[in-house]
Amino acid sequence: MTPSTTSSSPADLDRCEVAHLDPARLAALRDELMPSAAVGPVAETFKLLGDATRVRLLDALARRELCVCDLAQLVGLSESAVSHQLRLLRGLRIVRARRSGRLVFYTLDDHHVIHLFQQALRHVEEEAPAAAGIQRRA
Amino acid sequence: MTPSTTSSSPADLDRCEVAHLDPARLAALRDELMPSAAVGPVAETFKLLGDATRVRLLDALARRELCVCDLAQLVGLSESAVSHQLRLLRGLRIVRARRSGRLVFYTLDDHHVIHLFQQALRHVEEEAPAAAGIQRRA
Repeated sequence: MTPSTTSSSPADLDRCEVAHLDPARLAALRDELMPSAAVGPVAETFKLLGDATRVRLLDALARRELCVCDLAQLVGLSESAVSHQLRLLRGLRIVRARRSGRLVFYTLDDHHVIHLFQQALRHVEEEAPAAAGIQRRA
Repeated sequence: MTPSTTSSSPADLDRCEVAHLDPARLAALRDELMPSAAVGPVAETFKLLGDATRVRLLDALARRELCVCDLAQLVGLSESAVSHQLRLLRGLRIVRARRSGRLVFYTLDDHHVIHLFQQALRHVEEEAPAAAGIQRRA
């Protein structure tokens, strides 16, 4: 076996160079993981959020309750197109509707969605770390 | 014009029944919105998270730093498949790698990603509200 050199290509960083398994630690971790039944719904939630138009609608709704016509004006789409997106978002309880007289207002469904959205924005806004973000321990 | 009835199909709820625009409010809101340059990256971040395998990897990494072989064991995939996913996640700074001697450990890139992930799980775990989640104001 050749000792590793100080320079590594990004591909090198993906692999362990020596066998490294700790069955006891893995078993304990396995017990802590998200229930398998939650994995699909979490992935579906993220997938639905992964669209620029929906991001813009949710960004607006994270700030205040709005009706379809307000949203359509804000994002420059037809009310019909906005309605379609809201229906998808309502299906996964990302937004909810509230009728007030003859108007229908939309808002984010719960505070988890609001926080989720804020965290994604802050993540993106942070400066990219140097190079591939690799820290070497001395 | 016919007055609205008390029963509404879900489709009805997507549209305002009367014109409702407040130009001053819309203009103020437009100024508060996420910068357009951030919309794409936020959507791309969510899109990448919208995959069951990546959700499982990130769930494990949200709990502790792990190497590729640990991750492969945990999710029951080859190290090569796990490496591929980690490369995608590293590309958007969702995970980062740290070399320690001959081992490479992965962790979530920042606390925003950790919180983002926790909020998505909590959202999914909350009970679905009754019917379509519509609250009527008396």
